[in-house]
Amino acid sequence: MEYETPLFFHVMGYAAEADRDVIDMVSGNPDWEPPEALRDGLHEYADLESEYFQYPPSEGLRSLREEIATRRGVGLEQVVVTNGAGEANYLAMARALERDAGSEVILTDPVYSYYPGKTTMLGGEPRYVEAAEDGQLEPSAVREAASEETAAIVVNTPNNPTGAVYPESTVRELVAIAEENDAILVADEVYDHYDLSGTFSSALGVASDHRIITNAFSKSLAITGFRVGYAIFPLHLVDDAKSRHMLVNVAGSAPAQYAVLQALRETGPEYYEANRELLRERVDTFTAALEAAGAEYTRPDGAFYVLARFEGYPGTLANVERLIDEAGVAGMPGEAFGTAREDWLRFALVTPRLEEAADRLAEYFG
Amino acid sequence: MEYETPLFFHVMGYAAEADRDVIDMVSGNPDWEPPEALRDGLHEYADLESEYFQYPPSEGLRSLREEIATRRGVGLEQVVVTNGAGEANYLAMARALERDAGSEVILTDPVYSYYPGKTTMLGGEPRYVEAAEDGQLEPSAVREAASEETAAIVVNTPNNPTGAVYPESTVRELVAIAEENDAILVADEVYDHYDLSGTFSSALGVASDHRIITNAFSKSLAITGFRVGYAIFPLHLVDDAKSRHMLVNVAGSAPAQYAVLQALRETGPEYYEANRELLRERVDTFTAALEAAGAEYTRPDGAFYVLARFEGYPGTLANVERLIDEAGVAGMPGEAFGTAREDWLRFALVTPRLEEAADRLAEYFG
Repeated sequence: MEYETPLFFHVMGYAAEADRDVIDMVSGNPDWEPPEALRDGLHEYADLESEYFQYPPSEGLRSLREEIATRRGVGLEQVVVTNGAGEANYLAMARALERDAGSEVILTDPVYSYYPGKTTMLGGEPRYVEAAEDGQLEPSAVREAASEETAAIVVNTPNNPTGAVYPESTVRELVAIAEENDAILVADEVYDHYDLSGTFSSALGVASDHRIITNAFSKSLAITGFRVGYAIFPLHLVDDAKSRHMLVNVAGSAPAQYAVLQALRETGPEYYEANRELLRERVDTFTAALEAAGAEYTRPDGAFYVLARFEGYPGTLANVERLIDEAGVAGMPGEAFGTAREDWLRFALVTPRLEEAADRLAEYFG
Repeated sequence: MEYETPLFFHVMGYAAEADRDVIDMVSGNPDWEPPEALRDGLHEYADLESEYFQYPPSEGLRSLREEIATRRGVGLEQVVVTNGAGEANYLAMARALERDAGSEVILTDPVYSYYPGKTTMLGGEPRYVEAAEDGQLEPSAVREAASEETAAIVVNTPNNPTGAVYPESTVRELVAIAEENDAILVADEVYDHYDLSGTFSSALGVASDHRIITNAFSKSLAITGFRVGYAIFPLHLVDDAKSRHMLVNVAGSAPAQYAVLQALRETGPEYYEANRELLRERVDTFTAALEAAGAEYTRPDGAFYVLARFEGYPGTLANVERLIDEAGVAGMPGEAFGTAREDWLRFALVTPRLEEAADRLAEYFG
C-alpha cells in the first residue's frame, strides 16, 4: 500500500520509552478540562434504559444533528455526525474523488499529516501548493495549480501546523476556484474555537454547492478520545456520503454523542474564551523562550502549534529523538508536514509544563 | 456510486411512522440488559482525569487489546479494536482486496446486507454461493466458485439471517479453499456468544495466515450503539489494516472501549448463558406460532433470527409494509439478503413482546 502511517505515533512511543523525564509537546491533545456538563452527560447516559445503548441513527443522534444544524445555520439533512474530524475528512475527500471529476487533490505545504495518506488511500494524487512564510495561502497559487483534473482542494483553517488563520477573502477565493474547476473545497475547521486573532472565517459563510465543511468536538471540548465530529455537505453530495459512512462504520458511538450534546447545550461562551486566553498566554511564554534561544519561530493566529527553527538543528526525526533524549522536550519533526518546513520543529502548546519546556529549550539551545 | 444503503433504515423508519402500534422485529438490537459492570465502567470513566478523555491508541486501548488477545489466544500485535464489527469487516475486506490477488469476493446467498455494499465500495465484485435450504454452506460449492480471481471469502457464523452455525469441518475447508486460491477467509463471528446449538467453531481454531476473524461486543454485551469491535489479523496483514484504520477513523471512542473492558473483566459466563436461554425460549414460542399459522420457517442454531415464508405472501418490501400496517409486526424483507430467500421474511427475536408478535402473526395468517 502506498499510504503511510503518520509519524505522531512513532514519536509519542519514543518519548514514552525514553530513559528520562520528557515534556510531551507532540500530539494535539488539549490538557485543559472538558466542560463539566460533558461528565454529567456521560453519567446520565450510563443510567439510561438499555434501549439507548443500541444503534443510534447512522448519521448521528437526531438531537445532536439538530443542535449542530441550528448552530451552523444549515439544514438538518446536510449534517452527518462522524467518528471525529478524521472520518469527516475521509468522507469528504471520498465524495470529491468519487464524482469522476478529476483525481488530483490540492493540498498545502506544510500539510496536516493525515491528508496525503487519505488522498492516496482513496486513489487520488496529492498536488502541493506551498504556503507563504507566514502560513497564509495565496489564492493565485491555488488557482494556478487547479485544473479540470482537480477533484478537491483540502485546507485547514486555523491551520495545523502553521497557526495561520485564512481571511475571508482567501476562503471566498478558494470556494470560487473550486467552482471554476468543478472541484470540492474541503474546509477542515476543527480549530475554529481556537481562533486567537478574531479573523477566522468559515467556508460556510460562502454559499456554494462546491464546499464541504468538516469539524469535530475533539479540540473545542477537549475530548480527542471521544471521536465525535461532523461534516456539512451540499445536498447533492450528502446521500452518498451517508452511505459510505454506514458501510464503513454503521454509526458513531452513542455514549460519546450523548455526552457531547449535553456539553454543547450547557456550556457557555466563557468556557471557550478561557481556553483561548490560556493559549494566548502560552504563546507569549513559549515564543519569548524561543526568542531568548535565538530561534526563528511562528506566532500562531489560531490552533495550538508553534513552528521553530534552531540554527544548525534541522527538524529531522533523528533530531527530534535527540531533543527528547538530551533536552527532555518532545516535538514533531517538520518533515511530518511536507517539505516546506523540513528544517523546523513543531511544538504543541498543550502541556501544563509549558514554562518548564520553554526553559529546557532555552537552556539547550541558548 | 454503486453501493446501496441497506434496507434496514427504510423499514425501521416506516414502522416508526405507522399509524398503529407496531412490534419491532427488524433490527438486531438486543432488548436484554447489558452487564451491570458496563454501566459501572462508564460511570468510572466519566470521573477519570481528563487525560483519559484524549486519543486512545489508534489500534485500541492496550488493556482492552490484551484482554481480547488473552481470551482468544492470539498475539497482542494481531488485534485491532475497531468501530464495531462494521469497521472490522471493512478493514478485513479492504486488506484482502488490496493485495492485488484478485478482485472477486465470494459471498453467500442469503447474505448479510452490508457485505455486498462494502465489496462494491472497495472496488471488488461479489460472487454468490447459494447456501443449502438449512442455511449450511457446502464447501464444495465454495471451492467451485473460487479461483485466482478470488480475493476474499466472507462468511458469517452463527449466520444472520439463516441461523446456521457452520461445523468445524466447514470452517476448516473454507480456510483450505482460501489458502488454495491465495484468498483471505473473513470470518465474521459477531454472534459467537449466541450459539444455541453448542456446535460453533471459530476460524481461529484453524491456524492459517489466510484468515481474518472479525467480531464485536455489540451483540454479546447488548450494546450495538457503543461501536466496539475487533479484528484478528495474520501478522503480515495487520500493519496495513492499522494504517487504514488510522486514516479513516484515527481511533475508536475511548469511553466505550473503557466500559467494554470493565464489562469483560467482571462479567461471568452466567450472563451469556442466561441470554442464550432467553433466546432458546423465544425460538420455541415464535416457531410454535409460525407452525400454527401454517408457515414454513427456519429454526436457528445461533444468532437472533427466524426466516419465515407465508403462502401467497412473498417477502417483498411492499408486503413488509403491509404487515406493519395490517398486523402490527415489522420484519425485514427477504430481498434484503440476496435472492435465495426473496420469498421469505426475517424476524429478529429481540423484543420483550415476542409472544404478542407471534399471536398477531398467527391471527393474521391463520
